[in-house]
Amino acid sequence: MKLSSANIENHLDTVYDAIVVGGGMGGLSAAIYLARYGLKCLVIEKGRGRSLWMQETRNYLGLDPSTPGRNILTHGTKQAIEWGADHLRAFVENVTDEGDTLAVHVKIGKKNDRSYTLRSKYLVAASGVIDVLPELEDMQNVYDYAGYTLHVCMICDGFDMWDQKAVLIVKREAQINAAFVMNWFTPYISVLTHGHVPVSDAMKQQLADHGYPLYEAPIARFLGENHKMSGVELEDGTVVEATTGLINMGSIYHNQYLKGIEELTWDGENLITNTMTQTTHDRIFALGDLKQGLNQVSVAVADGTLAATQIWRNIRRASEPRKWEENVPKQTTAA
Amino acid sequence: MKLSSANIENHLDTVYDAIVVGGGMGGLSAAIYLARYGLKCLVIEKGRGRSLWMQETRNYLGLDPSTPGRNILTHGTKQAIEWGADHLRAFVENVTDEGDTLAVHVKIGKKNDRSYTLRSKYLVAASGVIDVLPELEDMQNVYDYAGYTLHVCMICDGFDMWDQKAVLIVKREAQINAAFVMNWFTPYISVLTHGHVPVSDAMKQQLADHGYPLYEAPIARFLGENHKMSGVELEDGTVVEATTGLINMGSIYHNQYLKGIEELTWDGENLITNTMTQTTHDRIFALGDLKQGLNQVSVAVADGTLAATQIWRNIRRASEPRKWEENVPKQTTAA
Repeated sequence: MKLSSANIENHLDTVYDAIVVGGGMGGLSAAIYLARYGLKCLVIEKGRGRSLWMQETRNYLGLDPSTPGRNILTHGTKQAIEWGADHLRAFVENVTDEGDTLAVHVKIGKKNDRSYTLRSKYLVAASGVIDVLPELEDMQNVYDYAGYTLHVCMICDGFDMWDQKAVLIVKREAQINAAFVMNWFTPYISVLTHGHVPVSDAMKQQLADHGYPLYEAPIARFLGENHKMSGVELEDGTVVEATTGLINMGSIYHNQYLKGIEELTWDGENLITNTMTQTTHDRIFALGDLKQGLNQVSVAVADGTLAATQIWRNIRRASEPRKWEENVPKQTTAA
Repeated sequence: MKLSSANIENHLDTVYDAIVVGGGMGGLSAAIYLARYGLKCLVIEKGRGRSLWMQETRNYLGLDPSTPGRNILTHGTKQAIEWGADHLRAFVENVTDEGDTLAVHVKIGKKNDRSYTLRSKYLVAASGVIDVLPELEDMQNVYDYAGYTLHVCMICDGFDMWDQKAVLIVKREAQINAAFVMNWFTPYISVLTHGHVPVSDAMKQQLADHGYPLYEAPIARFLGENHKMSGVELEDGTVVEATTGLINMGSIYHNQYLKGIEELTWDGENLITNTMTQTTHDRIFALGDLKQGLNQVSVAVADGTLAATQIWRNIRRASEPRKWEENVPKQTTAA
């Protein structure tokens, strides 16, 4: 069922089996499985996740490579609700451990927002990341290319850059090292630091050894039309010719709401999980981009399967077995 | 490219980067990724795998739950070939380790079959399992219901059995324990041993305690119409009423071709793998149902992603980096 500020009051006494924070690829997969295990679950989605920006889903078995991420999200959300999941558009501010339950504190609405607390036995953290994009005065100019010919994931889209002139846009010096992986796909790499970092002499030498020019001036705008890049104009007037590129400026993690849970173990911003995606907190699972490993749709979807299955096992094992009562010989009971 | 006995001779000198044994969900996902990493790969598919029998794909994000497995296989095979993978319909008889390469010995064709040897740097074992089905004189009667209302996977289809009268068909006593998991979905469980096993008194008592009747006579035929079961008729004339059921008679593993590789480590018929699906042989990866873990489409698809990515990393790291030659200052070379 779709929840909103109009009907949320009826659900404040519910203890969900699982609340899934994030309605992206991993979260929706978890919700579909949880619902089909007959468990009471709620997906809380803030909107504008990474997969919403995917213009094409290149490598996911079963879908045409031209399928936009938003289509999968719409389809999966509908599916989860049809199987019985609840779905709420809200922002998760904080999670607190109450012992038997986890309290999920949310804010609904942008203007005049209101705060509510929802409760569950298990939490599935599937709130993912978004990519840092270069900040230009005209952000629409970035959106015109990002996700089309200007990529944010080398594994997903390296193939589509094959032997093209490409820019690699970074924010920190260490991110320049992506050039020495990206050159598997194309050796025609120009590195742009967008004025962010001084680059060490050692890195400059390594780039020169590979023949990859380095441009340290800030980006003025991306050139091209119909989402097809033709180059990048820098603020010093230089035009770097490129028909494709990779933005490798790091990620923003949506994990702040978990920072107060002491039992969790972090590797940087990623949660440490076991083979069933369970974190070091017994009742918190982490999926996809929030945990260690590859940031790929297929991995997040499988993670959802694993988390939901482990939660089902835990809840099932703690439940009384259902008997075929009418078949059981009547027992004499003391009144 | 589609390979067959008509053009295979041209590929006997090829050393593939990876040969994928099995063109099911995991194998096709691996092939799509391998091809998009620009690696030379060949999928060898014998046909009639487990996912071909799936009449509906219930839990896989992005697809309608009514999607038959064969549609995904057809779509994925076409996709892999379009990205550059080779595909061969053949049966893999044996794999031998030649040091730098693995030799994959195949048989093409059913009548007048011919044997060939293909070679690769890496092997992806994605040949999966098939379910053991009850053997009746009229197997078409089994196929009329198996995969429709008579299921082989409780995780996939338990939800669709909810509170219905269901049969649990087993071959060994230990398989009866599935009843005590299946009762999460329905308590109206009749256990059929199809005359296969004597059942211990302890198990009989446990079933009686739950009110689950046990029928030890062989199955004569499944009753119903249009793939919808209404019951099971036993050879002793008993009719067991049931609108759904689970066949839990074990699996046949397609892994014989790997049994000569000494470095592999087995857990029963499953291969032990690391987090990237690499077996204990450096150049052999195992996916989906062949490895330990859940037998789910989403897991096999993610496994394909992981195997292909690790193979790409290994091959890339062993390759010379590509330089932007025209930018590199000309070096004086001694003639």
